[in-house]
Amino acid sequence: MTAISPLALPFPDLPPLAGVRLGVARAGYKAWDRADLTYAAFAPGTVVAGVTTQSLCPSPEVEWCRAALVLGHARALVVNAGNSNAFTGHRGRAAVEAIAARVAGATGCLPSDVFIASTGVIGVPLPIDRAEAGIDAVLAAPPASWQDAAATIMTTDTFPKAAVAHAVVDGRRVTLVGIVKGSGMIAPDMATMLGFIFTDCAIATPLLQAMLAEANAASFSCITVDGDTSTSDTVLAFATGHAGNAPLTAAADPGADAFRAALADVCRSLAQLVVRDGEGASKFVTISVTGAKSDASARRIGLSIANSPLVKTAIAGEDANWGRVVMAVGKAGEPAERDLLAIRFGATQVASAGLAVDGYDEAPVAAHLKGREVEIGVDLGLGEGAATIWTCDLTHGYIAINADYRS
Amino acid sequence: MTAISPLALPFPDLPPLAGVRLGVARAGYKAWDRADLTYAAFAPGTVVAGVTTQSLCPSPEVEWCRAALVLGHARALVVNAGNSNAFTGHRGRAAVEAIAARVAGATGCLPSDVFIASTGVIGVPLPIDRAEAGIDAVLAAPPASWQDAAATIMTTDTFPKAAVAHAVVDGRRVTLVGIVKGSGMIAPDMATMLGFIFTDCAIATPLLQAMLAEANAASFSCITVDGDTSTSDTVLAFATGHAGNAPLTAAADPGADAFRAALADVCRSLAQLVVRDGEGASKFVTISVTGAKSDASARRIGLSIANSPLVKTAIAGEDANWGRVVMAVGKAGEPAERDLLAIRFGATQVASAGLAVDGYDEAPVAAHLKGREVEIGVDLGLGEGAATIWTCDLTHGYIAINADYRS
Repeated sequence: MTAISPLALPFPDLPPLAGVRLGVARAGYKAWDRADLTYAAFAPGTVVAGVTTQSLCPSPEVEWCRAALVLGHARALVVNAGNSNAFTGHRGRAAVEAIAARVAGATGCLPSDVFIASTGVIGVPLPIDRAEAGIDAVLAAPPASWQDAAATIMTTDTFPKAAVAHAVVDGRRVTLVGIVKGSGMIAPDMATMLGFIFTDCAIATPLLQAMLAEANAASFSCITVDGDTSTSDTVLAFATGHAGNAPLTAAADPGADAFRAALADVCRSLAQLVVRDGEGASKFVTISVTGAKSDASARRIGLSIANSPLVKTAIAGEDANWGRVVMAVGKAGEPAERDLLAIRFGATQVASAGLAVDGYDEAPVAAHLKGREVEIGVDLGLGEGAATIWTCDLTHGYIAINADYRS
Repeated sequence: MTAISPLALPFPDLPPLAGVRLGVARAGYKAWDRADLTYAAFAPGTVVAGVTTQSLCPSPEVEWCRAALVLGHARALVVNAGNSNAFTGHRGRAAVEAIAARVAGATGCLPSDVFIASTGVIGVPLPIDRAEAGIDAVLAAPPASWQDAAATIMTTDTFPKAAVAHAVVDGRRVTLVGIVKGSGMIAPDMATMLGFIFTDCAIATPLLQAMLAEANAASFSCITVDGDTSTSDTVLAFATGHAGNAPLTAAADPGADAFRAALADVCRSLAQLVVRDGEGASKFVTISVTGAKSDASARRIGLSIANSPLVKTAIAGEDANWGRVVMAVGKAGEPAERDLLAIRFGATQVASAGLAVDGYDEAPVAAHLKGREVEIGVDLGLGEGAATIWTCDLTHGYIAINADYRS
């Protein structure tokens, strides 16, 4: 369970970001011999946008962030690893309020300027004394690196995950750095997805929120490991404004497109890293759906394929079992015409017009499936709707991680 | 892969049924050394009702049965095992038409009196020559037993499955016998669910159809092994009328309630047998959802729990991980209030009012989870909606069956 994913990528070189100071400490939420509390301090004037889980049973941290996002100002971020504090009733809410109060008291900001995320076991209230002591420790600690922060927010992750992008806005080079954790979508026990993006770009909160929502729809909302959704999933974007550009306020502003593209790039990279650390994953799978009635329909069909245990096990078995793809299209509940359906593995068309392609060359298909990166293309022949979904295979490793232990 | 499921039940004693004659033969659809074509001949006057897959990519057999069900008369049933004939375009349709023509020509019935179902690999047209030779052989073969028929329709199933029930209608004892195959819900490769129910009760087609739809909604539609849906799923009910009762024509007729209950009983037994043969299953799991806004909402929440890989692996691991149940409720997209939710394992309440029950006794929970039969109860505290879903756990065996081979 501690072996690094075969799909891991090396940690990138990341520059410091003006207006952001990082710290890590050991609060001791679990018996881990490592830091488990991550802190980020933001310069005055930092704005924040965010997206959170669609679960109807969210954690108190998620509820806290949703309320604070309405105000849109941030001075601090606290991330607890090892305990999600979800489904803990009034005790969980008290822990979140205590963390915000402790940070506000020590730094002179408002409690609503403090953003909080927690990840780990469900149903155990976060111990307030440990959280408070951890905050005191991290405020006194020396600055931490991006890699420290990316490693400290991990739970069952097997490697730290980060991405960087740049854009030119108003003649200034702005930087975006993101870190993420998660290795299921999402194992609530220990594998909530938390993502944090930091930029020195000056940008108004509503525009940042709109751009983050758009980027999320094509990145974090397009990945799946096991179809399960955490009670704590959270992605937050913090903008310090220290790059010195004239603030972006509207989508039509010069430079806004460049920033939007950079944000989309960081989100996509982070989302794909989560899939690369999928529990038990041995293959990184891209599912491209085209010809659907709409983009939303294409996305649902892509997720139906990506979440199918039979498709995922076929990929694990390096088996070009396109019948399982047909099945997953058929069960998606979206417009589909059997006799228009076309399917490819890699670059090889294996089925079209509702039946197998006569005598297609199996050699390149077999070679493609033996690789670490597998691509499945599905064309529905109905319209212009398209979506790309990223997932991983389903292996004995997933069962071993999730069944071969007791919580 | 050939070991019998640890959840298997013994084959029941089944009486002959007036108006039904069974046969089996070897068509040779695969390299199996056993019969793979099942035939049932029905007396004149036999009526039929049916329900079929909701897949939007159904097999030509499904389309054939849907058309024939409109007429509602049956003289023969042909079931092919080893090839589902799905996603085979015009060649698949030609095979179905050839089978119906062969039976009609040999027996003097109409092609529309011939019902056809096939199960097995997708994308390979059913070989017409083998099907025709198989039909010729089965028409010349000696009568077969219920157990022969139940075994011949099997694919990856590890044991033959059947159920029986009786009812008193119009002073006559009527009998219902059902057979079923399937060990996924449903692995399209080799594990489509096909169910066939035979009764000597005299009953009008529309009433039989209504009762079958109702029974299906509380049985076959409430099971899941892996959340995947076959392109060929079919349940047909044939009524010969040879019991001699005055035909049932309306739900209010005397005896109709007794017949309805018997039909529901057979369907539930058959559906549960499919779960007991779930690929890799080691536990039979009953999920009872109460307090939902509606029965339909309760069913969707139950299926969200039953299909969650994390819930299924927790059960495999005998882990009372109720946090994963909370997660699955939260992701179902149905009305739920976190702070009203209550969860039990077996008879032990482990969570209520949105948090863990303080100091609940873990011993009976652990003992319950070690058993072969696991029950999870979820109460939403919102209304009167209820549903019961049956599923199995997710084990290394499922991965072994579905990934550790090539098709």
